[in-house]
Amino acid sequence: MKPLTDATTTVAALREKVRAFVHERDWEQFHSPKNLSMALAAESGELMEHFLWTESGDSLARAHDAKRRSAIEEEIADVVIYSLEFANICGIDLAAAIERKVAANARKYPIEKARGRADKYTEL
Amino acid sequence: MKPLTDATTTVAALREKVRAFVHERDWEQFHSPKNLSMALAAESGELMEHFLWTESGDSLARAHDAKRRSAIEEEIADVVIYSLEFANICGIDLAAAIERKVAANARKYPIEKARGRADKYTEL
Amino acid sequence: MKPLTDATTTVAALREKVRAFVHERDWEQFHSPKNLSMALAAESGELMEHFLWTESGDSLARAHDAKRRSAIEEEIADVVIYSLEFANICGIDLAAAIERKVAANARKYPIEKARGRADKYTEL
Amino acid sequence: MKPLTDATTTVAALREKVRAFVHERDWEQFHSPKNLSMALAAESGELMEHFLWTESGDSLARAHDAKRRSAIEEEIADVVIYSLEFANICGIDLAAAIERKVAANARKYPIEKARGRADKYTEL
Repeated sequence: MKPLTDATTTVAALREKVRAFVHERDWEQFHSPKNLSMALAAESGELMEHFLWTESGDSLARAHDAKRRSAIEEEIADVVIYSLEFANICGIDLAAAIERKVAANARKYPIEKARGRADKYTEL
Repeated sequence: MKPLTDATTTVAALREKVRAFVHERDWEQFHSPKNLSMALAAESGELMEHFLWTESGDSLARAHDAKRRSAIEEEIADVVIYSLEFANICGIDLAAAIERKVAANARKYPIEKARGRADKYTEL
Repeated sequence: MKPLTDATTTVAALREKVRAFVHERDWEQFHSPKNLSMALAAESGELMEHFLWTESGDSLARAHDAKRRSAIEEEIADVVIYSLEFANICGIDLAAAIERKVAANARKYPIEKARGRADKYTEL
Repeated sequence: MKPLTDATTTVAALREKVRAFVHERDWEQFHSPKNLSMALAAESGELMEHFLWTESGDSLARAHDAKRRSAIEEEIADVVIYSLEFANICGIDLAAAIERKVAANARKYPIEKARGRADKYTEL
């Protein structure tokens, strides 16, 4: 079987992969939205720990550091796995939700006003 | 243009959507892995706030509550958007990373041992 | 020297303990408010991991579990240590800030309205 | 009544202030260790949001920015309030736990090895 890759894998296929893993272990009983949101936040914290004392400008080099690379890939994978499972349990279409959110952000951050600025839309 | 949906949207298409939004605003300069990991953790915290004082068993109803539904969809969308951008900036293939992580989890949590149990693999 | 205890230790004494530890190691250079807020969030995530798959009603027993007790005490200590250092670096009087926040919360959550309810003040 | 200040306020006095606020509202029923750890992580996320897109070296100025100062003081107050309540519910002496943790950190990070370095003790 060919390994999965972003270029050809649909979000639905990834969701199904996670759903099957969970179902085989009868873990749906633990996967309330509350618990999944906690797991997601905890995994985000672990990802963040890799960059704690690094300058922002040095953090890309750190993300490419051979000794850390696979750990960082595992942490972001965990974050997305819990996001997919959250969507599975809550019945949310992620691609649709992302499309709506990006459109809403585009209205809050019009290109001409937001270009090159990190300010919150309320401050633009 | 038809709206995006998980069934037919590849991870690469979602990544490109986020990449274009960021690029039009010249925001790559703020998107170090460090900053993106912080944004991801902050958004996870916002998602979690919806379920703070709710019993685990009541949280699915809360996720379906008409008054909260769209806010929750926006929060999980934000989490995934930052995950996609993190992958964009770091050059990580998410589907491949998820496939590897699920395989590693399957070794740590063999079905016969892990079924119906929430214990950490070190305690199985 | 007698061990410290909440009954007789001032916040200032705890702050000084943390300040001295940091200063001896010349670590102030890493302790920007940004970095300390990240460390705080990461440690909060570690504390939370102890209660991830536990029912809310079972989590107090878990906090008293002999095998976990000292790890949980260490996590909450880490959270408060980073809070104290954040106050040190930013020059915030924590007792004063807490007194103001509790007073503000008392106005937002008047006893007669808030008693026994977990709703946000905007929903009372 | 004189306002509280770190110089003269014991941890026990702050704990009692929080305990009384919670008790008057009959909120102990919501304050499981699980829920409090979530609230703590969510508040840490809110504190962090103030520094999201700021360079580490600019974040101290931001913490002193007149427009943000009181919001930042409120966020760190919230973090410590939930830490105190976590200690109340779990029966943890914070000063003692902090003293033990600082002593443990001093062993893991001996001054001569750790001075001026942000590396984890496993890498020293």
